[in-house]
Amino acid sequence: MKKGIRVAVDAMGGDFAPGNEIEGAVLALNSNSSLKIVLVGNKSEIESKLRTFNNSYTNIEIVNSTEVITMNDSPTEAFKSKPDSSLNVSLELMKRNEVDAIVSAGNTGAVLTHSVLKLGRINGVGRPTIGSLFPTQRRMTMVFDIGASVDCKPVHLVEYAKMGSIFFEHVFKIPNPKIGLLNVGEEDSKGNDLTIETNGLLKSSGLNFIGNIEGRDVLKGDVDIIVCDGFVGNVILKFAEGVLDLLKAKFKEFASTSVLNKIRMGMAYGTLKNIMKDFDYQEYGGVPLLGVNGVVIIGHGKSSPLALKNMIIRAVNVVQNEVNLKIKNAFSLNKQNKENQ
Amino acid sequence: MKKGIRVAVDAMGGDFAPGNEIEGAVLALNSNSSLKIVLVGNKSEIESKLRTFNNSYTNIEIVNSTEVITMNDSPTEAFKSKPDSSLNVSLELMKRNEVDAIVSAGNTGAVLTHSVLKLGRINGVGRPTIGSLFPTQRRMTMVFDIGASVDCKPVHLVEYAKMGSIFFEHVFKIPNPKIGLLNVGEEDSKGNDLTIETNGLLKSSGLNFIGNIEGRDVLKGDVDIIVCDGFVGNVILKFAEGVLDLLKAKFKEFASTSVLNKIRMGMAYGTLKNIMKDFDYQEYGGVPLLGVNGVVIIGHGKSSPLALKNMIIRAVNVVQNEVNLKIKNAFSLNKQNKENQ
Repeated sequence: MKKGIRVAVDAMGGDFAPGNEIEGAVLALNSNSSLKIVLVGNKSEIESKLRTFNNSYTNIEIVNSTEVITMNDSPTEAFKSKPDSSLNVSLELMKRNEVDAIVSAGNTGAVLTHSVLKLGRINGVGRPTIGSLFPTQRRMTMVFDIGASVDCKPVHLVEYAKMGSIFFEHVFKIPNPKIGLLNVGEEDSKGNDLTIETNGLLKSSGLNFIGNIEGRDVLKGDVDIIVCDGFVGNVILKFAEGVLDLLKAKFKEFASTSVLNKIRMGMAYGTLKNIMKDFDYQEYGGVPLLGVNGVVIIGHGKSSPLALKNMIIRAVNVVQNEVNLKIKNAFSLNKQNKENQ
Repeated sequence: MKKGIRVAVDAMGGDFAPGNEIEGAVLALNSNSSLKIVLVGNKSEIESKLRTFNNSYTNIEIVNSTEVITMNDSPTEAFKSKPDSSLNVSLELMKRNEVDAIVSAGNTGAVLTHSVLKLGRINGVGRPTIGSLFPTQRRMTMVFDIGASVDCKPVHLVEYAKMGSIFFEHVFKIPNPKIGLLNVGEEDSKGNDLTIETNGLLKSSGLNFIGNIEGRDVLKGDVDIIVCDGFVGNVILKFAEGVLDLLKAKFKEFASTSVLNKIRMGMAYGTLKNIMKDFDYQEYGGVPLLGVNGVVIIGHGKSSPLALKNMIIRAVNVVQNEVNLKIKNAFSLNKQNKENQ
């Protein structure tokens, strides 16, 4: 195991920053003592929060930054107007090779835009992508893209499949992961212009493409990786959250109808909570941004300390398994093959 | 109330045809005695099934057809190769004005294709659309389109909003229904090429457009009608089914872990079933195909007798409220306005 992996935490990013970010960093250090964490943000605020923890951590460093990107900031404007944001400073550290990875629970659009502009795309990658894990009836399935690009071309979906395969194979240790294309029908001829053409490209890609899958199949767990346009992926990711919100509201409503129903729901609640936990993607430790020259793990704005801890651990895994190097090699090989043809 | 509305039932369409179709027709007649039902399909099979019901129904007619479109048939091929299908004969009856509406739980693609080819589009409508009801935290929301067209242009989404508004206003009696555009962000500038342009068109459409909504908001019930490309609508409709499948599987898995958990789930199950019922779109009586010259209500292949009954009642409502006449008027008015400009 490579020692001393250095992770920068965008300490001002999330809705509960810097508290959850700092607590998450401490949790990560408790579980992996060889780790080095750089907390980027308002130094005095971070120092005062850090003092509330009993231990003194020698492998936490603080790098000061004076600006904060909010959830409402426009990503491109923030890139111009807030050069000293905690996000930008974190990326700057990665660019200078002072850290190996960054994690951020901040404005997702800003993390994406800043990462692409600051780090650049891996040679041969047309569109970087963000993947997200979905719970299924069997195992975890990862959906690419969940919103990095909203007007994808067929070749981009193939890139997602290729990068996703590498991530899955090396981070989750599942060789030759199965890939499905999200579509409106199983037959090759079904779909819109994008999916019909992508289906053909995936078939001849050399990847383990098992064919089209429908919305109903996303959570079945028959495939490891699902590729789709970022618009569609974003809609279903958020829609899944909406289904859970609705269920919770319905449970509450049901409990309010009578004392007996309240008792019934009270008895069922622990069970339900346990089951719904599987849907809580915060447990899974953020989502990777693949295709840029650096390791970037993105979390939900509402990320808990546990989620942030898991994001940091995920970042370490991605660095240790040299995912980016493998993506680089695969895309340069691809380029060479094309040139040789 | 207009008397004697005539509804053709594609008796060979669904997965449990003709049994559920016939039982659904009987249930509908029991609740509305002024109704006339034409069961279209294998006459002897239908007659023998009908005899199992005690009452003799004078307002059921049977029209024989010799061919059946299966769920695996290609819609366009079936249109050519099976002219005497129960679906085609039902549509023929509507075309000859021998019935006022048809309902079918058969192959959705075939119902769509046959309806458009046989009945034609309403003048001014570029793309007919299928809408589906989703349960929400407040009231029912209807999503257009759920798969009639998978490569929509902005003008088509505006057509969906317009037809959906008329349907909602006259069938559900909600004046000036609120319309949301499904998107990846709330701001007008967010989205893909399709949604950014559609946003602008909807703003100047004179409809009650409240703006973009995200995946998470679909089930909140803040809007009456949600418009989106049929690809996206189809994916989220089926994905919602997949979420329920997953929850059921998780409940079962949880119950199997220990006797105590089995007892817990046993106590919770009635409650859960009650709550999940809201998600069962079979209760809602099928989905309308809007924009063709005729009233067509489409059901899930697995439609229960209750679902088929509700589809027939929905068809009656659409006929009684002259939804198609109102769509025709709105689209011809629109055309006139354009010509006068």
